[in-house]
Amino acid sequence: MHIHIHEFADSPFLKLTAAEFHEAAALAGAIGQGHSLTMGVTLDDFAAAAPTMEVLIATPGAVRRLDLTRAPRLRIIQSTAAGVDALVPFDMIPAGVKLLNNRGVHADRAGEFAIMAMLMLAAHMPRFATDQRAHRWHRRPSGVVAGRRATIVGVGGLGGGAARRARQFRIHVTGIRNGDAPHPDCDETRTIGDLDAVLPGTDFLLLACPLTPATRHLLDARRIGLLPRHAGVINIGRGGLVDQPALVAALNAEEIAGAVLDVFAEEPIPPGDPVWEARNLVITPHISSDDPDHYNAATLAMFFANLTALAEGREPGTVVDFEKGY
Amino acid sequence: MHIHIHEFADSPFLKLTAAEFHEAAALAGAIGQGHSLTMGVTLDDFAAAAPTMEVLIATPGAVRRLDLTRAPRLRIIQSTAAGVDALVPFDMIPAGVKLLNNRGVHADRAGEFAIMAMLMLAAHMPRFATDQRAHRWHRRPSGVVAGRRATIVGVGGLGGGAARRARQFRIHVTGIRNGDAPHPDCDETRTIGDLDAVLPGTDFLLLACPLTPATRHLLDARRIGLLPRHAGVINIGRGGLVDQPALVAALNAEEIAGAVLDVFAEEPIPPGDPVWEARNLVITPHISSDDPDHYNAATLAMFFANLTALAEGREPGTVVDFEKGY
Repeated sequence: MHIHIHEFADSPFLKLTAAEFHEAAALAGAIGQGHSLTMGVTLDDFAAAAPTMEVLIATPGAVRRLDLTRAPRLRIIQSTAAGVDALVPFDMIPAGVKLLNNRGVHADRAGEFAIMAMLMLAAHMPRFATDQRAHRWHRRPSGVVAGRRATIVGVGGLGGGAARRARQFRIHVTGIRNGDAPHPDCDETRTIGDLDAVLPGTDFLLLACPLTPATRHLLDARRIGLLPRHAGVINIGRGGLVDQPALVAALNAEEIAGAVLDVFAEEPIPPGDPVWEARNLVITPHISSDDPDHYNAATLAMFFANLTALAEGREPGTVVDFEKGY
Repeated sequence: MHIHIHEFADSPFLKLTAAEFHEAAALAGAIGQGHSLTMGVTLDDFAAAAPTMEVLIATPGAVRRLDLTRAPRLRIIQSTAAGVDALVPFDMIPAGVKLLNNRGVHADRAGEFAIMAMLMLAAHMPRFATDQRAHRWHRRPSGVVAGRRATIVGVGGLGGGAARRARQFRIHVTGIRNGDAPHPDCDETRTIGDLDAVLPGTDFLLLACPLTPATRHLLDARRIGLLPRHAGVINIGRGGLVDQPALVAALNAEEIAGAVLDVFAEEPIPPGDPVWEARNLVITPHISSDDPDHYNAATLAMFFANLTALAEGREPGTVVDFEKGY
């Protein structure tokens, strides 16, 4: 097949190389052999490759900038991110083209970020950061996290990795998912309809679900108000899951104890945005799922596993459901 | 026995109550029965209790303010802290009085703080904190911590708790201790004489040993210079273990990547101290071993275990060796 990897010059954070592709192809066995690879950076590169292209590998943001109608043989788009909200409502994906993401690749790294953030919230680290900025020494007792309660919205790759780590610290984990099927790393699972009932007993609220029209502003002022004052919020999903001005207001009013946010309504956060100066907030620049030593290799291994499934007439493991949005 | 608990009004952070004492005494069985308890806050309280006092329970800082020569029947001082450096060189402890500390009580909480700090250093959190203060969005890739190398100086209660957690994340742990006896939670142990050889291969340097004349300024400019540039430093022991101006200079010059410091040369950190504005430094106000829900109960349980040992003619488990200083 003709496989095209496209990364615009302004976007690559984890640049995917031809060498990485060939290494993954070799590891994949027979399914990795006999392909022709092109690498593109510009719109002209894409136009040149488009007539024969059967597979496109790119970030959702890059895909959105390409004219896919110029690639009549395109059958598969492999996203190099799990979140494909940039492509909603998917009307630019030609009929018959499967969109695959790489959900699950981020589980280990996201799990480490999530438990770090929970330990930070338990130890009052966002508050100490505010104190440090003010040159203020104020001891605030905390204690071990065993027995505290985490509510994890979305127990896919990210949330599942977080649940696994949280349980190692004997944190009680409630997973919020579609349907209430049990999850091996959650003490209990509830549906999104139960979220309001779960929030008042939550110490750590972790958002780790896809951004879809149904989850946009999932955490709004009303739900923030249902959290106890000592609760902390972590967002490793997408900025749009949160009504950001409402969260900033709650932090500044100390209606909740703190937050660790990795994703934001607008990224990079614009100069002068009030989020920069919010009280008891730890900001990270959308890095919670990075794992440069493993990320590209794992994404490409997933791509070849998806190709194998298609070759065998099975549904690929990470196909995006356009109705659900993930 | 007459047991006196002394806490000056200006000092109690984790106030020890009579109710906690009686609860611990009840749990301790026979050894907990038949004692008379006094609680003191002022020097007059101490003077009133001194003539019959056989046991004194207090912080090292409180002990230092008391005239122990007024307590002729005193046999045991139970410190409510593990670090007794405030009492060095112990010349105010009357002959025949045993000083006991509560080492080991802090292991679980210190282990959680230490792994949080290692995950923070791996994720560039001290650098992101500096970025956040400057309203700067700068993505810096990191990855999982598996395979990174922690050097833990002191593998007693604090360091042992840290090693246990670090191993859960598949961090390679080198414990530095007196002698090279193996430790169940370290991949290898080395003596302090080997520290210089270990530093260049260290990703996370955790200081968790007692402060004694031998360990003062253990981490000086020369040893900081042996660390790789990407290394991070964590101090949960005592501020005096570090040449603080040298560490601040190394942070500001980015000779090392970051630090998470819980203890300082002077506490509270004085206004205007350069440490407040050091680059890539996360400051916490000496809280890494706090565990208010368990601390007092665990300290008192240890006290009664020590009493049992003495009653049975054994050496108490946490007696302080005045030669070693811990």
